[in-house]
Amino acid sequence: MNRLPDEELVLIPGGTLITTTPEEGRALALAIARHTIHNIQPDLDVLKEGRVKYGADPDSLIAASQIVAIEFQTIAAANNYWRP
Amino acid sequence: MNRLPDEELVLIPGGTLITTTPEEGRALALAIARHTIHNIQPDLDVLKEGRVKYGADPDSLIAASQIVAIEFQTIAAANNYWRP
Amino acid sequence: MNRLPDEELVLIPGGTLITTTPEEGRALALAIARHTIHNIQPDLDVLKEGRVKYGADPDSLIAASQIVAIEFQTIAAANNYWRP
Amino acid sequence: MNRLPDEELVLIPGGTLITTTPEEGRALALAIARHTIHNIQPDLDVLKEGRVKYGADPDSLIAASQIVAIEFQTIAAANNYWRP
Amino acid sequence: MNRLPDEELVLIPGGTLITTTPEEGRALALAIARHTIHNIQPDLDVLKEGRVKYGADPDSLIAASQIVAIEFQTIAAANNYWRP
Amino acid sequence: MNRLPDEELVLIPGGTLITTTPEEGRALALAIARHTIHNIQPDLDVLKEGRVKYGADPDSLIAASQIVAIEFQTIAAANNYWRP
Repeated sequence: MNRLPDEELVLIPGGTLITTTPEEGRALALAIARHTIHNIQPDLDVLKEGRVKYGADPDSLIAASQIVAIEFQTIAAANNYWRP
Repeated sequence: MNRLPDEELVLIPGGTLITTTPEEGRALALAIARHTIHNIQPDLDVLKEGRVKYGADPDSLIAASQIVAIEFQTIAAANNYWRP
Repeated sequence: MNRLPDEELVLIPGGTLITTTPEEGRALALAIARHTIHNIQPDLDVLKEGRVKYGADPDSLIAASQIVAIEFQTIAAANNYWRP
Repeated sequence: MNRLPDEELVLIPGGTLITTTPEEGRALALAIARHTIHNIQPDLDVLKEGRVKYGADPDSLIAASQIVAIEFQTIAAANNYWRP
Repeated sequence: MNRLPDEELVLIPGGTLITTTPEEGRALALAIARHTIHNIQPDLDVLKEGRVKYGADPDSLIAASQIVAIEFQTIAAANNYWRP
Repeated sequence: MNRLPDEELVLIPGGTLITTTPEEGRALALAIARHTIHNIQPDLDVLKEGRVKYGADPDSLIAASQIVAIEFQTIAAANNYWRP
């Protein structure tokens, strides 16, 4: 197995849900979603093969985006929606 | 790869979840959903091909709409539902 | 393209999430869900064709209903659940 | 078209999200979910045919149950979870 | 039809969302999810047949687990997350 | 049946939703999701077979990740988002 390096398996990159801006919060949502996949399937070769498949399938892209939307709900609440 | 321009890859267009009206909040939900897809698949040619497929498939349209509904939950909460 | 009229593309029909009754709030959830689809696919001919397909498929009907449930969560919260 | 009677098309049966018990709240969640389907597809013959299909398909039953779970989230919040 | 006994059709077993521990809350989430399925399809023979199918299909197991996650959100909120 | 050991069937490993860090909270979300699957399908042989299938299917991996996202919403709220 071509195992991902340890830093790709951290569950919450940076160790906190608090970010300075919505843009950073969204990037964190994407990172958390990606690292969850890494923990369920840590074999880089399998992930790369899957990437080719889902990256060209609109339904898979929509499903992946939904996860980011759900993760972002949590992060946005954690940051009180970055209200001014 | 026919890469999308940088402005299409901004995660939170405008940089804030706060909007003046529900209509603008909903437009932001659509934009955030679209830009998430762009970040997962930044190749415009692949996206265009996928568009043809999912735009005519009611199940894909329903799935895409669900993401907008979830993004809007976050944005509406951020704006205290634009209560008068 | 047989484009939908502009009023079918308004994202939040009526411009507010606030309604007098739960029944009206639910009708708004249905309208918002429908108008989101319209914005993603504004060609009436394509929509009509899709309607025939998903209207007779229980799994599609269930998926469509789920969106209404999610939109209604937002609208019900906006209205403090119409508590007496 | 064998159209459902009007009372099956009311969106929020009873006109309120407030119930006396969790059991009644859950029954309301089921009713709201069912009436949403009725509004999207009001032809009883089509619904009956779909019923045969999804009632015997575990994945359809799971999907239908998920909607009830989401509707119940809203109703439970409306009732402050019926806390003593 | 081999109808389930009445106690399997109670929507909220125990009649309350309040539990002493997270473990009991989670068990309640599972029970509520199961009883919802029972109410949509009360024929034990059909359920048993479906069980064979979905119990061995990872995608069905994932979908079933998602419902439990959603039900648990409601129950955990009802119990203020069993905070000490 | 090659039944999982009892500790794999505990619904909330550790018996609490409260954790010291987001990283631990995320690990708990993964554990709860896994143990839910175990309770629905406690036969290790069936689970192992399913693992081979869903571990290599990007759509299954996305669906599994979505459950973790939902479980984490609950755990993050329980911990007030580990705000400093």
